[in-house]
Amino acid sequence: MNESERKVMQITPKSADFSKWYVEIVQKAELADYTPMKGMMVIRPHGYAVWENIQKGLDQRIKAAGHVNAYFPLFIPEGFLKKEAEHVKGFSPEVAWVTIGGKEELEERLAVRPTSEAIIGYMYAKWIKSWRDLPVLINQWANIVRWEKVTRPFLRTTEFLWQEGHTCHETAEEGEAETLAILALYREFCESELAIPVLSGRKSLSEKFAGASMTYAIEALMSDGKALQMGTSHNLGQHFSKAFDIKFEDRGQTLQYVWQTSWGMTTRTIGALIMVHGDDSGLRFPPRIAPVQVVVVPISIGKWRETVLPTAEAVADGLQKAGLRAVIDAREEMTPGWKFSEYEMRGVPLRVEIGPRDVQAGQAVLVRRDTRAKETVPLASLGARVPALLDEIQAGLLAQARAFLEANIRDAADYTAFKDIIEDKRGFVRAPWCGDEACEARIKAETMATIRVIPLDEKEAGTSEPCVACGAKGQVLAYFARAY
Amino acid sequence: MNESERKVMQITPKSADFSKWYVEIVQKAELADYTPMKGMMVIRPHGYAVWENIQKGLDQRIKAAGHVNAYFPLFIPEGFLKKEAEHVKGFSPEVAWVTIGGKEELEERLAVRPTSEAIIGYMYAKWIKSWRDLPVLINQWANIVRWEKVTRPFLRTTEFLWQEGHTCHETAEEGEAETLAILALYREFCESELAIPVLSGRKSLSEKFAGASMTYAIEALMSDGKALQMGTSHNLGQHFSKAFDIKFEDRGQTLQYVWQTSWGMTTRTIGALIMVHGDDSGLRFPPRIAPVQVVVVPISIGKWRETVLPTAEAVADGLQKAGLRAVIDAREEMTPGWKFSEYEMRGVPLRVEIGPRDVQAGQAVLVRRDTRAKETVPLASLGARVPALLDEIQAGLLAQARAFLEANIRDAADYTAFKDIIEDKRGFVRAPWCGDEACEARIKAETMATIRVIPLDEKEAGTSEPCVACGAKGQVLAYFARAY
Repeated sequence: MNESERKVMQITPKSADFSKWYVEIVQKAELADYTPMKGMMVIRPHGYAVWENIQKGLDQRIKAAGHVNAYFPLFIPEGFLKKEAEHVKGFSPEVAWVTIGGKEELEERLAVRPTSEAIIGYMYAKWIKSWRDLPVLINQWANIVRWEKVTRPFLRTTEFLWQEGHTCHETAEEGEAETLAILALYREFCESELAIPVLSGRKSLSEKFAGASMTYAIEALMSDGKALQMGTSHNLGQHFSKAFDIKFEDRGQTLQYVWQTSWGMTTRTIGALIMVHGDDSGLRFPPRIAPVQVVVVPISIGKWRETVLPTAEAVADGLQKAGLRAVIDAREEMTPGWKFSEYEMRGVPLRVEIGPRDVQAGQAVLVRRDTRAKETVPLASLGARVPALLDEIQAGLLAQARAFLEANIRDAADYTAFKDIIEDKRGFVRAPWCGDEACEARIKAETMATIRVIPLDEKEAGTSEPCVACGAKGQVLAYFARAY
Repeated sequence: MNESERKVMQITPKSADFSKWYVEIVQKAELADYTPMKGMMVIRPHGYAVWENIQKGLDQRIKAAGHVNAYFPLFIPEGFLKKEAEHVKGFSPEVAWVTIGGKEELEERLAVRPTSEAIIGYMYAKWIKSWRDLPVLINQWANIVRWEKVTRPFLRTTEFLWQEGHTCHETAEEGEAETLAILALYREFCESELAIPVLSGRKSLSEKFAGASMTYAIEALMSDGKALQMGTSHNLGQHFSKAFDIKFEDRGQTLQYVWQTSWGMTTRTIGALIMVHGDDSGLRFPPRIAPVQVVVVPISIGKWRETVLPTAEAVADGLQKAGLRAVIDAREEMTPGWKFSEYEMRGVPLRVEIGPRDVQAGQAVLVRRDTRAKETVPLASLGARVPALLDEIQAGLLAQARAFLEANIRDAADYTAFKDIIEDKRGFVRAPWCGDEACEARIKAETMATIRVIPLDEKEAGTSEPCVACGAKGQVLAYFARAY
C-alpha cells in the first residue's frame, strides 16, 4: 500500500466519529487546510472550485432578480460601527482591529469588516436623494473577518467568503417583500443546486441579526442530526437609515428614511455539502456543484496505452465538448482501484470505466457515486446517457436528503419527550413555544437546542397547545434543534 | 437644465486639466466614489461591472493555461513577512497591521496582505513533497492593502482588487518559461479585451518586485503621455523556496528547492481604460469590456409610447437575445438629448436611436461612441450590423491607441533631447543606458522619468551607443517615461 492508498483508507468512518470524519475528509479531499493562524484556513483548489460553482449559480439568480454587484472597503472606522447601538454590541466582541498603517498609529482604529452595513450605510446616505434613486439593489462578494473562539473548517472560521446584499426601498412593505424574496431565492438555490432541502422561517428575536427588525433564515439538517443555518435575510427596517441618516424625498416631496434589507450566504455552505451528502467513503457532490462531474478511468491491463487509452481519451473529450466537467486519469503509477477510491473520496458523481473488453464490445461501465449502481452503456449512447444520469444523481441526492430531513422532524408531546429526542435522535423538534426569551434561554441551557425557525405560514406556525417547556400559553409552533 | 444635465455638462475637458478630468469622470460616471478613509474607495456598480468583465476574460485565459484558483488568508503573521529579507524591506513600510482580535492584544501582529508570497510559501512547503506534485499552478482573486501616501481612484488606492498567480516548478527554465508565458498572456489580454497596446519587457533591478530575481512588466501609454504599469510577472527564482523551505524530491531522488513565479493584474487596469480611451465627453469603453454595449433610446416625440416604444423594446429585446449587453432607456422624465450625453459619458460603445419616422421607414440610427459616426440601418439588418459594428469599434479603439503609442515612442540623441522630450512631449523615450543604478537614479531625480521596460528581444535591446545620461558604454536600449 503506497502513501496515497493509505490516505484513502485512513478516513475515520462517518458513523464512528462524525466530527473526526468531517475534518479528515476536508483535509484528505484537499478542500481546505489549516494555517498557523488559529481559525484561518486555506481554501484549496478542489474546495474553491465548489465555491466558484456556488458563486456562479447564486450570482446569476441575484442578478436575475435585479441586483448589481459593487465593492465596498474592507475597513470600517470604529465610529461607524458605533452608530447603530445593537449592531456594535453584537459585533464588537468579534472584531479584528487595524491600529497601525504605514508604520504610524492610526487616530481612529479600523475594523476589518465583520459585515458591511455600517460602511454601506454611510455611502447610501451620500448617494440616495430621491424616490427616483430607489430601490437600490446592491450585492457584494467579499471576505469577512470575525474573531471566533471555536472554529472548524468552512463552518466557523475567522475569515470566510460570502455575498452580502444591501438594499434600500421606499416603503416598509417593499423592504419586507425583498427580504422574503431573497429567502425564497436562497431556498430554491439550495434545493436546485446543492441538493439540500431546507426549512425556512423567521428567527426568534434573541437570534436575530444585530441591528435588524427581523431575521429570516433557511436551515438544513446535517446527517449527524444537527442543524446548520444556510443563509439569512434581514429586514433592517429603518435602524441603519436612522443611524446613518439615509433619507430620500418621497413622491409627496417629504423627506423619509429608507427601508433596508441585508442578506448573505457564505462558504459554510461547502461544509453543509460535506455533512449532508458525504458517506464513509468520502464526499458525494451533487453534479450541478461538483468541480469534476465525470472521471474517465482507463483500466490499465496489458498494452492498455494502445488498446484502451485512445478510446478513453475520445470519451473524455466528447464529454468535455458536450459542456460537462469531465477529466481523464491516465496516470501510469496509480492502479485503477486506487483511482476509484480517490475519486469516490473526492465526491465525483460519476465514473466511467473503460477496459480492453469494453473497447472490443464498444461499451463503457458507468458507476454512480451516490448509489454505487453500475450500468454498461454503448459508447455511442454515452452522450445522451451521462447527462441524464447526472440529472438522476442530482435528483437522487436531493430526495435522499429530503427523506432524511422529513424523517427527522418530530413533534414533542412534553418537555421530557423534547429532551429525549434532542438527546437521542437529534433532528428538528417541532413544539409550541410561549414566545418568552427567558424560557427560550432555559431550553437552550438545558438541552443545547435553539429555535432554528418559526414557520412563515401563520397556519403552520399557529398553535393552541401550551409551551413545551414552561406550560404557559403557546404562541407559535417552532422548530428546535442543536445547531452548528 | 436639471441636476443631471448639469452633471454631464460640468466635466472639466480632458485637454484643459487631465487630472481633474480623470477624477471627475470617475465620480460622475459612477465608477467609484471616495470614502471617509483616505485612499479607500468604493467601486460602484458601473465600475464593478467593468471589473467583472476583466475578471471573466482574464480568469478564462489563466485557467486555459492550466491554472486553478484557490483562496489564502487575508492575514500574514509578521514573522512570515520577515523570512525573505528583501520582501519585508520592500513591503513593511506599506503594511496595515492588525494588533487586536476579539478584544485581546495579539501576541504576534498580523499584516493585512500586501501580497501573498509569504503565506502561500508556508503552505507550499506543507503540500509539496515530490516532483510528481509539480508544477503547482495556483491563482487567487483577492483584495490587497498597501498603505499608500498619495492615492488616486483605481490607480493607487490603499485597498485594491487583483489576481495573483503563484507557481512552483522543477527547474529554473520552467520557472522562466512560466514568467514569460504569463507576460504574453497579459499582453494578449490587454490588446484583445481592453484595446490597450503595451510595451513588454523586463524591469531594471531597482524596479523589480521585492524578493524576485527578475520582474517583467507590460506598460501602456495614457493619453496624457504618462506610462502606466498594467501587469507584472516575477521570476522569484529560489528566494522564497529557500526562505520557506519549499523542497521536493526530484526525479533523481535528490531534495531540491522549487523554482517559483508570481504575477498579478489589478483594478488599476480600469484606470487605464479611462485614461487611454476617454475623451472630453467622458468614457469610451471597448465593447468587449463595456458593462453596457448598446443603449436603445426611443425618441420621445408625440405619442411615442404608442408609436416608438414597442419597436424600441423589440430591438433591445432582440439584441439581448443575441447575447449582447443591451439596455433600453425609456424614462419619461429625461430628454433624448440628456440620455445621449449621459450614455456617452458612461462610455457605452453604441447607441441606437429610434424615432417615429424611423419606425415608419423600418429603420434605426446607429451612433458610434468612438467616432460619433452615424448610420441608418434597416431594422431587419440590426442583428447582423450591431455585432459587426461593435467589432469595428473594438478594433478602432485599439488602432487609435496603437497609433498614439507608436507616435509617442521617440529616440533621444543626447541627454538634452531626452529631457526636452520628457518635459514637452512626454511619451516613451528609447535611449541607451549604461546599466548603472546610480545613473538610473540620477535620471529619475532630474527628469522624473524611470525605466519602464527593457525589451526582451536581445536584438531590440542591443546598443552600441553610449548611455544617454552619463556617456559611459551603453548596455541596453531602454524605454523611459514618467509614470503613474
